[in-house]
Amino acid sequence: MTSRDEILNLFRTNSDHYISGQKISHLLKISRAAVWKQVKALRELGFEIEAKHSLGYRLLAAPDLLLASDIESGLNCRLIGQTVVALTETDSTNAQARQLAEDGAIEGTVVVADRQSAGRGRLGRRWESPSGVNLYCSILLRPQIPVQQAPQLTFLSAVAVAETLEKVCHLSAKVKWPNDILVNGAKISGLLNEMNAETEQIHFVILGVGVNLNMLEEQFPESLNYPATSVLLETGKSVDRLMFLQTFLRCLEQYYAEFLEEGFTPIRQRWEGYCDTINRQVRVDQGSGSLYGTVVGLEPEGALRLQLDDGRIERILAGDVRPVTKKMDRE
Amino acid sequence: MTSRDEILNLFRTNSDHYISGQKISHLLKISRAAVWKQVKALRELGFEIEAKHSLGYRLLAAPDLLLASDIESGLNCRLIGQTVVALTETDSTNAQARQLAEDGAIEGTVVVADRQSAGRGRLGRRWESPSGVNLYCSILLRPQIPVQQAPQLTFLSAVAVAETLEKVCHLSAKVKWPNDILVNGAKISGLLNEMNAETEQIHFVILGVGVNLNMLEEQFPESLNYPATSVLLETGKSVDRLMFLQTFLRCLEQYYAEFLEEGFTPIRQRWEGYCDTINRQVRVDQGSGSLYGTVVGLEPEGALRLQLDDGRIERILAGDVRPVTKKMDRE
Repeated sequence: MTSRDEILNLFRTNSDHYISGQKISHLLKISRAAVWKQVKALRELGFEIEAKHSLGYRLLAAPDLLLASDIESGLNCRLIGQTVVALTETDSTNAQARQLAEDGAIEGTVVVADRQSAGRGRLGRRWESPSGVNLYCSILLRPQIPVQQAPQLTFLSAVAVAETLEKVCHLSAKVKWPNDILVNGAKISGLLNEMNAETEQIHFVILGVGVNLNMLEEQFPESLNYPATSVLLETGKSVDRLMFLQTFLRCLEQYYAEFLEEGFTPIRQRWEGYCDTINRQVRVDQGSGSLYGTVVGLEPEGALRLQLDDGRIERILAGDVRPVTKKMDRE
Repeated sequence: MTSRDEILNLFRTNSDHYISGQKISHLLKISRAAVWKQVKALRELGFEIEAKHSLGYRLLAAPDLLLASDIESGLNCRLIGQTVVALTETDSTNAQARQLAEDGAIEGTVVVADRQSAGRGRLGRRWESPSGVNLYCSILLRPQIPVQQAPQLTFLSAVAVAETLEKVCHLSAKVKWPNDILVNGAKISGLLNEMNAETEQIHFVILGVGVNLNMLEEQFPESLNYPATSVLLETGKSVDRLMFLQTFLRCLEQYYAEFLEEGFTPIRQRWEGYCDTINRQVRVDQGSGSLYGTVVGLEPEGALRLQLDDGRIERILAGDVRPVTKKMDRE
């Protein structure tokens, strides 16, 4: 824990009275000047700290910032979040996590940021990442599974996000193959997983997760080629980002342990339960043309199982899947 | 082409007579001092260059060095080897290729080295890489295929190595699942492919190829847990490394184009034709125990298709495969 985090902890546990600079200096074994420097830094982050002559400091209000010490405290996970890196701003949490992974960071390391200056979505597209309202996080895993099974982790993280949206926000979430989470047909979360592997060994997988939590209508970019939403827009209430993140990480820990123990089947079944197009007629647009059929589930390696009209099963590895509602859509 | 390569070209095309420093300086538009510096550098690399007063320079003998200009010249590939990086020594060609890939190198970039100081084999094991006798190379690809199909490229490079051993060295090569090439039951080549990908997009794949060409018995490490060999040991003749490499790269280019056009099937069929255990009884040792069955081929995603005694098909994604010759082996 940094001394900034330790001072914040002292303020929080003493929020009903003043605590003197001298006492802080004594407790944390740092100089009075260092205490003052950290108080200044906390104020710059948006903390309201009252300073009263001869009494000391008192925390009046805290901004909605994700701090490593807050995330770690009470998380109660064995693997996920043993190391948390919380940044006020970064280019992209995936890029930070990749760097940490290459430098040997332990499995379960979590990177979160209040703002991303270069957040990325699918296929290199931009992911809008305004400050302090949403969740941008990346989790580093080092599973000892065959390379071909790594894409299964995308579905694991999709299920964990959907379940967290239900638990914490009481929203009915759907998953859209391969890596979106929808609420009322609009995108509320996107997943971007990265992998570094050699023939027989995965070096690391990074689960990148973006969830639109408290984003306002005016914070969405004007031109989006899909409907998007946030928890705030759907429920009319803002959500505690820390509680959301901790619930999500606990969910991820549980499903990851189950995945390593029992394989993909339980995750696949949950994912199919959340799937927005299961047993529905869809059109799959691929570079080479379109396919029509009924979504019947997920293949073991993460392909979408599509039953064509003539009964044949196609394994879809790439493409855009859209529900087909009327015969006319098929012309 | 560097000025060193250009001078070497001049020496080679004028090997029957002397060429003056003044003429080289004029032709290449570099100073006389620069000419002298490059001649000195070439001598340090092992080139025998005669210098005769008032006549100039003449190339007497060239060492068996892999030079970028030699590799590029007469390669006649459209994709593979448009950029060649030839190093006298490096840590590992895969590590160099990975760095180049991250810096945006084009598809088809080839990295070769005369010596690797930290050559790696499967699962982080050391790959013995003495100077100037073998082939150590890495090819950068950026295929637009689903992540799940990337392991298929291992089998593509295995087929290209086996075919090159047949064509250039007249050896009967076999492939051993997942990534070895054998001659007379001993390992002559190993493949180490690396991948960097996100959910729907491969950033790059690096095909790492090590082939024991002119390695002598005493150059093999004393303790190897498998029999190993080289072309020289098998045929009694040394092989021209440049010709071997160029033939291999042309073969790779042809099969890669076919793979992008027609998919995995033709590669899979060739690989099965070279497979050392096809239609044979094997034991597969996995962390959790052993399986017995008959190898019946490759699955679309690169798993080994094993038919168990009760007729069921197992997809093997990891493990050591050994032929079983007697009933007694099964105890």
